[in-house]
Amino acid sequence: MTKIPVGILGATGMVGQHYLRLLKDHPWFEVRYVAASPRSAGKKYREAVSGRWHVAGEPGAHVWLLQVEDAGDVSKASAALGRGDCSFVFSALEMGKDETRALEEAYASAGIPVISNASAHRWTDDVPVLIGEVNPDHAGIIPLQQKRRGWDRGFIAVKPNCSIQSYMTPLHALALAGFQAERAVVATMQAVSGAGYPGVPGIDMIDNVIPYIGGEEEKSELEPLKIFGTIEDGVFKNARKPRISAHCSRVPVTDGHLACVSLEFGVKKPSLEEVKEIWASFRGLPQELGLPSAPEKPIIVHEENDRPQPRRDRDAEGGMAAAVGRLRPCNVFDIRFTALSHNTVRGAAGGGILNAELLKYKGYLS
Amino acid sequence: MTKIPVGILGATGMVGQHYLRLLKDHPWFEVRYVAASPRSAGKKYREAVSGRWHVAGEPGAHVWLLQVEDAGDVSKASAALGRGDCSFVFSALEMGKDETRALEEAYASAGIPVISNASAHRWTDDVPVLIGEVNPDHAGIIPLQQKRRGWDRGFIAVKPNCSIQSYMTPLHALALAGFQAERAVVATMQAVSGAGYPGVPGIDMIDNVIPYIGGEEEKSELEPLKIFGTIEDGVFKNARKPRISAHCSRVPVTDGHLACVSLEFGVKKPSLEEVKEIWASFRGLPQELGLPSAPEKPIIVHEENDRPQPRRDRDAEGGMAAAVGRLRPCNVFDIRFTALSHNTVRGAAGGGILNAELLKYKGYLS
Amino acid sequence: MTKIPVGILGATGMVGQHYLRLLKDHPWFEVRYVAASPRSAGKKYREAVSGRWHVAGEPGAHVWLLQVEDAGDVSKASAALGRGDCSFVFSALEMGKDETRALEEAYASAGIPVISNASAHRWTDDVPVLIGEVNPDHAGIIPLQQKRRGWDRGFIAVKPNCSIQSYMTPLHALALAGFQAERAVVATMQAVSGAGYPGVPGIDMIDNVIPYIGGEEEKSELEPLKIFGTIEDGVFKNARKPRISAHCSRVPVTDGHLACVSLEFGVKKPSLEEVKEIWASFRGLPQELGLPSAPEKPIIVHEENDRPQPRRDRDAEGGMAAAVGRLRPCNVFDIRFTALSHNTVRGAAGGGILNAELLKYKGYLS
Amino acid sequence: MTKIPVGILGATGMVGQHYLRLLKDHPWFEVRYVAASPRSAGKKYREAVSGRWHVAGEPGAHVWLLQVEDAGDVSKASAALGRGDCSFVFSALEMGKDETRALEEAYASAGIPVISNASAHRWTDDVPVLIGEVNPDHAGIIPLQQKRRGWDRGFIAVKPNCSIQSYMTPLHALALAGFQAERAVVATMQAVSGAGYPGVPGIDMIDNVIPYIGGEEEKSELEPLKIFGTIEDGVFKNARKPRISAHCSRVPVTDGHLACVSLEFGVKKPSLEEVKEIWASFRGLPQELGLPSAPEKPIIVHEENDRPQPRRDRDAEGGMAAAVGRLRPCNVFDIRFTALSHNTVRGAAGGGILNAELLKYKGYLS
Repeated sequence: MTKIPVGILGATGMVGQHYLRLLKDHPWFEVRYVAASPRSAGKKYREAVSGRWHVAGEPGAHVWLLQVEDAGDVSKASAALGRGDCSFVFSALEMGKDETRALEEAYASAGIPVISNASAHRWTDDVPVLIGEVNPDHAGIIPLQQKRRGWDRGFIAVKPNCSIQSYMTPLHALALAGFQAERAVVATMQAVSGAGYPGVPGIDMIDNVIPYIGGEEEKSELEPLKIFGTIEDGVFKNARKPRISAHCSRVPVTDGHLACVSLEFGVKKPSLEEVKEIWASFRGLPQELGLPSAPEKPIIVHEENDRPQPRRDRDAEGGMAAAVGRLRPCNVFDIRFTALSHNTVRGAAGGGILNAELLKYKGYLS
Repeated sequence: MTKIPVGILGATGMVGQHYLRLLKDHPWFEVRYVAASPRSAGKKYREAVSGRWHVAGEPGAHVWLLQVEDAGDVSKASAALGRGDCSFVFSALEMGKDETRALEEAYASAGIPVISNASAHRWTDDVPVLIGEVNPDHAGIIPLQQKRRGWDRGFIAVKPNCSIQSYMTPLHALALAGFQAERAVVATMQAVSGAGYPGVPGIDMIDNVIPYIGGEEEKSELEPLKIFGTIEDGVFKNARKPRISAHCSRVPVTDGHLACVSLEFGVKKPSLEEVKEIWASFRGLPQELGLPSAPEKPIIVHEENDRPQPRRDRDAEGGMAAAVGRLRPCNVFDIRFTALSHNTVRGAAGGGILNAELLKYKGYLS
Repeated sequence: MTKIPVGILGATGMVGQHYLRLLKDHPWFEVRYVAASPRSAGKKYREAVSGRWHVAGEPGAHVWLLQVEDAGDVSKASAALGRGDCSFVFSALEMGKDETRALEEAYASAGIPVISNASAHRWTDDVPVLIGEVNPDHAGIIPLQQKRRGWDRGFIAVKPNCSIQSYMTPLHALALAGFQAERAVVATMQAVSGAGYPGVPGIDMIDNVIPYIGGEEEKSELEPLKIFGTIEDGVFKNARKPRISAHCSRVPVTDGHLACVSLEFGVKKPSLEEVKEIWASFRGLPQELGLPSAPEKPIIVHEENDRPQPRRDRDAEGGMAAAVGRLRPCNVFDIRFTALSHNTVRGAAGGGILNAELLKYKGYLS
Repeated sequence: MTKIPVGILGATGMVGQHYLRLLKDHPWFEVRYVAASPRSAGKKYREAVSGRWHVAGEPGAHVWLLQVEDAGDVSKASAALGRGDCSFVFSALEMGKDETRALEEAYASAGIPVISNASAHRWTDDVPVLIGEVNPDHAGIIPLQQKRRGWDRGFIAVKPNCSIQSYMTPLHALALAGFQAERAVVATMQAVSGAGYPGVPGIDMIDNVIPYIGGEEEKSELEPLKIFGTIEDGVFKNARKPRISAHCSRVPVTDGHLACVSLEFGVKKPSLEEVKEIWASFRGLPQELGLPSAPEKPIIVHEENDRPQPRRDRDAEGGMAAAVGRLRPCNVFDIRFTALSHNTVRGAAGGGILNAELLKYKGYLS
């Protein structure tokens, strides 16, 4: 099988580097186009990231030699599309919100699908916020999006904020089994890689916790409602449940967002054994399809009382699973537990790649 | 004024060291008796802690030269009492629960009041769990305790677990103002000093969080009910509110327990401005009396959106205040906020000293 | 090819766990025997490490089900040898020195070769301290060791302390090229995993460095002299150069020992370019033989001025290479540089496995 | 006594904040003038540092209300001098080197003495680099500097780089006693506060060490030669000894630079006991004069084998002393030891204040 040529927007940033690392040897996709800020444009990729390649692992050897293009110049990507080097792009742009929104639309309008990590389009009413195991059917809005906007080949699909990744699949699995969470109080302990590079100052992360991450609590409370929502009249309509209260803090951890979750169900409440069984046996569409980046077990259930822990558990299933543990009755709501997700893999580049695999399977990418 | 001679049980441990540091130059108390395990007994204090004095600061110069006694041998303390060297003891014993309970009773029975940090007697129904600003009236059980047990001079008074110290005074101040919290969901990020020395393994606290602290969640949920309770028929009767759910995690911080709190009130709900005003203006009995270790402001209200932080804020008011910040509406309950308390000062030795000052004022110590 | 069945002594400890992780899917060796302290004996391996499996990755699935034997009972291993389940053992024993020495000799005497990580036999005059790339010829003492001690099949071979691993191959490569280092001043910054588990207390590794590791400086100064030494009259005779001064400190890093090295050569001094070229092109016997665990490049030369760094560079070549960087003239000696080695891979289990591969190639293991 | 009114240039930065904290309640000096970048100019100081007051402690209450002036506008300071609000300035400017040099000269030229932390003038041949205990006589160049430059009241005096502070006084004490160090190899482990704020990225300081600090090794090797030098013909002439080789690394520590030092003496070599005695008994001019910020013991000698440690020992003597420990024979040179200095107190603001106290005593400030 010939691999689909893909591009990376924001290829020199931290998320861009993770994309390149994870796409090395990918069975379906091959990176043949890299774009970044004008400062990097014109350089070979190796030179552009010299002294600031921050992630473990490497891109494919040929990527070092690709010439970096200006991500702001869509005509370069159009030309690449024309010559068969860029069938769609992963967007890891780190610009302002309005600029990102306009630029992603320009790529889509030019016939280049955009699979994005950026937050700019998460609240655009015809753009799906996809988690493969939770709402793969939301991809069904893409033809409506294309029609409404007059785009033929291009479209935009995004992924949610990394802070919610650890508990969305667990909540969805329970709802599927008939146990809809009504309310949740969540306190997250988030890794510094979520802030990019240089990100959080070093002195703030020694013998310290920062109990605040700008905008993160709002995203954590609202994005789940769109993801659990429905398509009505060609646009998304939010779900009304669960009502979430999020406390988001930054802790001295490199990778892996941890969440302490208290959950209240409606009239129908599962036993702890039922919850455990539902989580351990849950399989979503990515698992059924055997997508290349899908974790075999999307939810890993820990029985030890001190797990999951970021450093010990974030890399399970290649960093693509949610790990849950400490399931116990809640003294205020019904159940409580701790959940962990690798924020720069499943919560960023890995999540984007799984979305692309799903969209490829559904026929939106070729 | 002649200072009251006091003893420290567990004087070589970490909490014992903090007692010695904080009692240096205390206006009312002077350490003249130190006791620890048989291993240390017979040595000069300086020798006993050689290579394991872990805290910043120093004890009074004379303490280095005190001979360490066996804490298990009450007759040594009785003799010290007799010769005017040990009017009462601070207990920072680190033995098993049953052993601690029996030993503290033996001291009290021998006429030596015990002001304890240990958890052994927190659920003894005639032993007060004191927070000076919250339930100073609970000291009123002491004569009943003495009578019931046939003790003349001795008694036992304890302090609560360090994990609740940051939000108890804020909750109490609100209740006093007519805003009784009905339910609370709390997630703590606790410092490693709370586990003593050697405590948490180093490799567990690099690039990691441990989402579990044995017994801590139960203590955090139950102890507030005794503290907010009442004395009936000579014993404590628990309050029924607030119902608390606690998630307790260990984070790479040396000192300072942080708590993310979501609070639900009954019918009467305060505005955010009222909460802020109630906290900022709250003064308890230790403040009215001007006790030597009382923080001037028992609750410090932060307006910046990223405070309180453990390293930057734990030492305010000498480590004796609770710092609160990030007060905002809760998306599930009524309000939410972040609270911080210095676990080895207010949450341990400093809290014990303030209790002793209160009991001295009330005439129970002399 | 049928795999050689091997045993692990100290299989439940941290180094033992790394052995199991690294031997999963090994092309030559298969773990069929695990032994540990009497406390673990009799349990299935999974049960024995429940709640204390600390390393990333997993052993082969069949290992979970192996019954743990008492490492102190050599007859168990003899029986396993007899039934074809334990052809030789990797020793990761964590007992006292004398006890370890005697026990390793008992295994060897029972016909079971011992490839050891323990320090007990490093100064035994007929036991080789092997680094595959540096002194593979030292294996030649094994027949002499066997003859002298009356052992037929068994023998003992050990590896050096993890603190010297990062600079031994670089020093050897230079000496081979004619540039013998005469004197070296070394300051190491060592990871906490080197202290085992629980190891260094957590509070010592937050906002702190411990400028002392018991016994480490002596090992760092003396072991190189044996490794660079020669076999004379059936025993090892130390080299006299280089004279090393080591300062060893513990820093808040999980894995990866870093060393700052200043080097003085004799009359013949290399240019910086020569050094770089010698290191980059160096290949030892493990590389020539293509041993399964041999790094392709035993010395990785970094050009960036802020590398190697523990977290970013320790895993290169599967954690088996030495990384060097910051090569520059020394203001006191001739050259200086920074070197890094993964202490729990190359410096412990991985180094032991490479030694076994070498000894298998040389015909000492079957 | 009326206090001398002083100004702080760069008052909003981290070093500026330390100056303000340390000058609160200073017996001789009172801050009455604060200047910073144009961005802060015109604001009240409290407003200018809102959300970025990083240090523990507070400035004097009146400082919050001072209006911040533009540090680039010397006329503002001249006016303050005129009205008796700024007799001299502490410079904690964080501009480029050339700009700082010119600006400090403009202040001096305007009659305002500059006591500087900046590195800009360290190599100006008539500017003294002062360490009170080491080269107080270098202040004698000030009249020559004033005459040469045509300044009447103004002058410039600076302090050295923070990385050398821990071992300069120990080296000087030995030289005074007749034991001149000829060569030294030094490896430092430096705190992140040395890089200012935001400084080192957080992700670089979790589970990591950065073995490089730009320009730091050169400063560490050269500045001691000027400090140990002499005044000849109105300018400084460098000493020729000791020859130093420095390896400088950044470690996850907030405050406190640690140095591992190997030292070679000339023909006359001290015993370890002599070294210890020389250090423990050393007193410099600041001690003899009893200057307000002078540590009672400028060198604190530790006997425990694992001290000094940054977190436990940096605050001794108010952060103004050098702590030394692990004194032992060197396997390559003569002796070796570990030294510690608080980089933001003695190594920055505290060192500047002590210099000002010395210069006031000598009559250069009024």
